[in-house]
Amino acid sequence: MAQDRVIIFDTTLRDGEQAAGTRLGAREKLEIARQLARLKVDIIEAGFPASSPEDFRAVKLICENIKTATICGLTRARVEDIDICGKAIAKAKRSRIHTGIGVSDIHIRGKFGGAKYGKTIGQKKANIIKMAVKAVKHSRKYTDDVEFYAEDSGRANRKFLYEILEAVIDAGATTLNIPDTTGYAIPEQFGGLIADIKANVPNIDKAIISVHCHNDLGMAVANSLAGIKNGARQIEGTINGIGERAGNAAIEEVIMAIKTRKDFFGIETKIKTEEFFRTSRMVSEMLGMPVPVNKAIVGDNAFAHSSGIHVDGVLKKRETYEIMKPEDVGSPKTKVVLTARTGRHGLKHRLEELGHKLNKKELDQTYARFLEIADKKHEVFDEDLMAIISDEIYAAKYVFKLDYLHVACGTGTLPTASVKMTVRGKEKQAAACGDGPVDAAYVAIREATGLSPKIENYSIRAVTSGKEALGEATVKIREDGRTFLGRGLSTDIIEASAKAYVDALNRAEASKK
Amino acid sequence: MAQDRVIIFDTTLRDGEQAAGTRLGAREKLEIARQLARLKVDIIEAGFPASSPEDFRAVKLICENIKTATICGLTRARVEDIDICGKAIAKAKRSRIHTGIGVSDIHIRGKFGGAKYGKTIGQKKANIIKMAVKAVKHSRKYTDDVEFYAEDSGRANRKFLYEILEAVIDAGATTLNIPDTTGYAIPEQFGGLIADIKANVPNIDKAIISVHCHNDLGMAVANSLAGIKNGARQIEGTINGIGERAGNAAIEEVIMAIKTRKDFFGIETKIKTEEFFRTSRMVSEMLGMPVPVNKAIVGDNAFAHSSGIHVDGVLKKRETYEIMKPEDVGSPKTKVVLTARTGRHGLKHRLEELGHKLNKKELDQTYARFLEIADKKHEVFDEDLMAIISDEIYAAKYVFKLDYLHVACGTGTLPTASVKMTVRGKEKQAAACGDGPVDAAYVAIREATGLSPKIENYSIRAVTSGKEALGEATVKIREDGRTFLGRGLSTDIIEASAKAYVDALNRAEASKK
Repeated sequence: MAQDRVIIFDTTLRDGEQAAGTRLGAREKLEIARQLARLKVDIIEAGFPASSPEDFRAVKLICENIKTATICGLTRARVEDIDICGKAIAKAKRSRIHTGIGVSDIHIRGKFGGAKYGKTIGQKKANIIKMAVKAVKHSRKYTDDVEFYAEDSGRANRKFLYEILEAVIDAGATTLNIPDTTGYAIPEQFGGLIADIKANVPNIDKAIISVHCHNDLGMAVANSLAGIKNGARQIEGTINGIGERAGNAAIEEVIMAIKTRKDFFGIETKIKTEEFFRTSRMVSEMLGMPVPVNKAIVGDNAFAHSSGIHVDGVLKKRETYEIMKPEDVGSPKTKVVLTARTGRHGLKHRLEELGHKLNKKELDQTYARFLEIADKKHEVFDEDLMAIISDEIYAAKYVFKLDYLHVACGTGTLPTASVKMTVRGKEKQAAACGDGPVDAAYVAIREATGLSPKIENYSIRAVTSGKEALGEATVKIREDGRTFLGRGLSTDIIEASAKAYVDALNRAEASKK
Repeated sequence: MAQDRVIIFDTTLRDGEQAAGTRLGAREKLEIARQLARLKVDIIEAGFPASSPEDFRAVKLICENIKTATICGLTRARVEDIDICGKAIAKAKRSRIHTGIGVSDIHIRGKFGGAKYGKTIGQKKANIIKMAVKAVKHSRKYTDDVEFYAEDSGRANRKFLYEILEAVIDAGATTLNIPDTTGYAIPEQFGGLIADIKANVPNIDKAIISVHCHNDLGMAVANSLAGIKNGARQIEGTINGIGERAGNAAIEEVIMAIKTRKDFFGIETKIKTEEFFRTSRMVSEMLGMPVPVNKAIVGDNAFAHSSGIHVDGVLKKRETYEIMKPEDVGSPKTKVVLTARTGRHGLKHRLEELGHKLNKKELDQTYARFLEIADKKHEVFDEDLMAIISDEIYAAKYVFKLDYLHVACGTGTLPTASVKMTVRGKEKQAAACGDGPVDAAYVAIREATGLSPKIENYSIRAVTSGKEALGEATVKIREDGRTFLGRGLSTDIIEASAKAYVDALNRAEASKK
């Protein structure tokens, strides 16, 4: 297929979420998908529907609501997976099924070692081709847009790779995903692989080549671009580069390289780069994964110059050191500050600018909380608003509620907490001591609820800077082998911590239904 | 110069520290330098001595103490800078001066716009060469090992670039640093630039070409490696990839790529890769810059597999997805846990394993604190130990001391704090209310000390996971246009926050001497 621009395939909600150590609720996934659509990514990989009922629901919900991007679901090369995916994407305006199989000898022997897949490697390979063709044909029953991933292509026998790619194109695959599964490719070699595929697969002009790179050796972006230079026309990646192990290619880096170095690549994308900053912050906030200050493109320091020598140069002539401009990626020049005087309408307007679309009830709820916070901290920043939203709108429906908390602590004081809670409709009280004030509050909450899940992880961060910062606590708990992330927000970090714990308990409870 | 291995030039203490938004004390810099020497980097760029008396002291201290690596100081192409640098490195066993100047037209016009540098660009360029040659010759009075940086080489007129490089080699430069100053290079082009320099600078065999890449478009590692492939034999970078804007090439990524893909690069380094993990954590801890979980090589998830499909593959056959092994980079397989029963000797041993060399007094002090913490939280992890060290050993000498703190807070309670402090030898008491418990404590501390510096940044993190986590607070304050980072540690996060504030006040005070 002739293709004069690069198609952008975002897998933040699939490969990204998978690695975050937490699961997003369907409503949260939808909100991120909405923002990805505003960013104008071409394809949103929304999940792996066969992996869990939650993933199925999320893909379905996104298909029902997002009509301006193609929505894609991942499957293994199995009829059962594909049927579930087919159901999940049924209501999409444009849908894609992404199916595939491992193609290197190492993968084939590792995953299809059993005799039922054939006794010799040759027999196994013939079977792999059959399975791949069957998966693609079956997927075509649900959609005309089928992408095939050839896992571990880089280590595959070349002849076999060309053969399987030719077969799946004949079977109806319209995009071929060549992933650098292990993240060990080098641009020169990876570019060569793409060029070889273009040269050696006879029917390659009927499909688009896609590259999916991981960052294990720090080269995901360079490898993706080498793919483009050699004929690939789709790039897969995630916002902020999140993903398995060292992550996927960061979409914002790939796009800004293509845009900034148009002189070299001579190609375009449809991406609205001004949406990068807000997309980055939304993903970071919802997944509880902070953006490093020196993250390229979207980090807080990405456009900051601290060195004396450099600052001097920047002041004398801006182009000395800057080629990209912060406004190109939507990095705010000045902070927008809301106060208690900001009306309901002003809040709604700013939330929409930040990418959050709330219904009337949600807005009422958010406004009430906003006033409460504005009253305490006077200046409310975007980060505060995003934290309020995630606390008010995306928190789990509760069966446990914290009605009252009191904590005393300090040097030479035994940290002590007392709580009053609503637990499944009944009022409960408890008091406890602990190693610190947070521990004391947690012991009291455990006593009041009668639950004691294992705490896997606890963290707290200041959402905005300054002494009036809002504190956001996140707690990851483990119950029945699954983990749940709870979040809590307050100007009081102890209260934020207690709320986060209760939120996690509610999320664990909600998952039982 | 024939060179069969890649020389590693670490600039964590110069380009890295510069961007961290804080200054390390000389003692902290020395400790990092010791660890870099253990990692076996060839050259440690320890600072920019002319930039501040602290930087001068740090470079001098490192030169006096580290004898197994070359210690380098940065200068501009100015005699004054070079003289100061020469003094700082006088006691080194092996020393290097790193001097240089901007060579692109944009730089020359931007920085040397004044008529005194010549009226035409041609005259300016002739002057630039004179300045460069003079700087190199002057540097050679202090050391035989002189590196010249040709800033913004990528955008320089090629003929001029070759000319100035030839001139500085003749003047005595032994290494030529070709930086991608703006971070916009593409591997193919950057490799081409290095190849062209090798082909067109007549006396190039008398010097080593070095590459210094920034990550603005996410390609610092790939660009560095393209340099090596095309004849460069020194790489400059930082631990964890910290540095200006989007950071420098991450040394751990560059090295592991060279090592893992020896089939492609066919070259070696002297680096002891097993030291990467602990170096990463020490730098992160001391600069207060967390390592992202999905950071390649040293992130907590770098070797973690979460996807169901992948985990299945890993279990069936490890090599399906893993080529590098966690132990290659010193990533601990199991956590070492110390308890209150761990003796003084056991603590000393573990601290040495973590890279910290303490004298007897420091060890006594650390052991006392260790026992106190072990008593509260039962299990003491490496992260706890590193936090204790930074709290006990690297904290500023105090003129302000927090003797007592009590805080009460909770829902519907006005957060209230009372403190007792020693302020310049006198006992002071104060009580105050605030927006939250931390704010209340800070107001009380301000009242007791009579100081009220602006808080630029406040953050708190759980050092280890679990409910018995130690909390580490960091506060950045601004006084007289300079920023100071204070840290505090406790199982009680309010106490940790109060300590961090007092530490920052002490650091600001110490800087006034």
